[in-house]
Amino acid sequence: LKPISIRGEPAAGGKLPLICAPLVAASRDALLAEAAAAAAARADIIEWRVDYFREIGDAAAVLEAGRALRRALSGVPILFTCRSEAEGGQRVPLSEKAKVELYAAVCGAGCIDLIDYEMSNAAGDMKAVREASRRHGIALVCSYHNFEATPPPAVLAAQFRRALELGADVAKVSVMARSPADALALLAATLQAQAIGIPLIGVSMGPHGALSRVAGFAFGSALTFGVAAGSSAPGQMPIGELRAAIEILRKALGG
Amino acid sequence: LKPISIRGEPAAGGKLPLICAPLVAASRDALLAEAAAAAAARADIIEWRVDYFREIGDAAAVLEAGRALRRALSGVPILFTCRSEAEGGQRVPLSEKAKVELYAAVCGAGCIDLIDYEMSNAAGDMKAVREASRRHGIALVCSYHNFEATPPPAVLAAQFRRALELGADVAKVSVMARSPADALALLAATLQAQAIGIPLIGVSMGPHGALSRVAGFAFGSALTFGVAAGSSAPGQMPIGELRAAIEILRKALGG
Repeated sequence: LKPISIRGEPAAGGKLPLICAPLVAASRDALLAEAAAAAAARADIIEWRVDYFREIGDAAAVLEAGRALRRALSGVPILFTCRSEAEGGQRVPLSEKAKVELYAAVCGAGCIDLIDYEMSNAAGDMKAVREASRRHGIALVCSYHNFEATPPPAVLAAQFRRALELGADVAKVSVMARSPADALALLAATLQAQAIGIPLIGVSMGPHGALSRVAGFAFGSALTFGVAAGSSAPGQMPIGELRAAIEILRKALGG
Repeated sequence: LKPISIRGEPAAGGKLPLICAPLVAASRDALLAEAAAAAAARADIIEWRVDYFREIGDAAAVLEAGRALRRALSGVPILFTCRSEAEGGQRVPLSEKAKVELYAAVCGAGCIDLIDYEMSNAAGDMKAVREASRRHGIALVCSYHNFEATPPPAVLAAQFRRALELGADVAKVSVMARSPADALALLAATLQAQAIGIPLIGVSMGPHGALSRVAGFAFGSALTFGVAAGSSAPGQMPIGELRAAIEILRKALGG
């Protein structure tokens, strides 16, 4: 199981899995309140879902909020994500070109550690995002989301592989579980994808996917999302419960 | 998910999964001490592994201990099991004929609620055990154990089906997980076996199988084994931790 690294160092000292709290605030003040809740819940990493941020069209405001977030979260790594509407994000008043420019500006500002960009984006945009992140030592999560269903195993495997081909530092696949069998399929796909050699995030969304959030680390998923203040996807559990279940399972797996 | 029933009533009010504490004492006094620990841990059911009982060769002593156990565990269902050495039990000084007679005597004594007998036994012995249990309204668990490995999915499916063919009230398959993939295979087999229509117990043993003990109920397993005082198989977790993880997962699955 490969840990996620930031500038050559395993995040959170190599803890596996990282527990990640999504921040989904619309305003700077609400963002800092969510950050405080994430810190209180002892999240290992936070994901700033900037597509929820009301001032996303104002790059200076985004950078200022990012710097405030960095100060508020001393030492907690920050994953910066403008999730596309097509993959479950909020509608934002930005062209894709402007979004890529925002990613590049944020990468250069030193206030975040990782970014997430969907593999469904145009190759040129992905390349620009990849180059900007590399230039500034920011790790790139290449992601695939499906809020409708869990695709067949071959499709899941192909998405993990594609992240590697695109130069990802982390490959993320997050799909809706509509049955207990779907949860097993995602875990099996994550297990097999360990062969590609980069850190993975495998998630089954929805109630049927709860197992993946708790047990994904045993199948190669390096990060799991849990709720501190706000939720960004169906099925996310409160961080306290998530951590408790993970620790019980970790002990049993170790014995 | 079918609950395990005793004399027409769902055990423990239909709670799923039942948490079962194995009792592995060698003496009557130690047996009652283990029973007290199981009650204190709020086990839903106990399995008396009589193959560990030093006086197993003395049917009267077994029946007396069984009655003492019944009194000590007022209301907690008792599963009576003389596990064969071939499937992970202790060596006992009984012929198979004597073992079948012991099962029949215990079924008639009114001090237990269920018995477990391995499907690997001779057809005639299984038939005798089945008839004795039916005559006295005792539920029969037909079981398959493999302490070496997790066989291919077709073998797991065949073992669940065979229990139905043998007239089981409950089908149990317990196999060693040697990898995370083995744990997924057992869960998938349990999920598919729900089609046979009787209550199931599906277990992956060993550290890699921990997931099945916590999450098996989400895949159709009606009972999970946890440790109160003694352990009867590798990978069994303390009941308190097992229950905590199950309750967190149950809440997440329900949401």
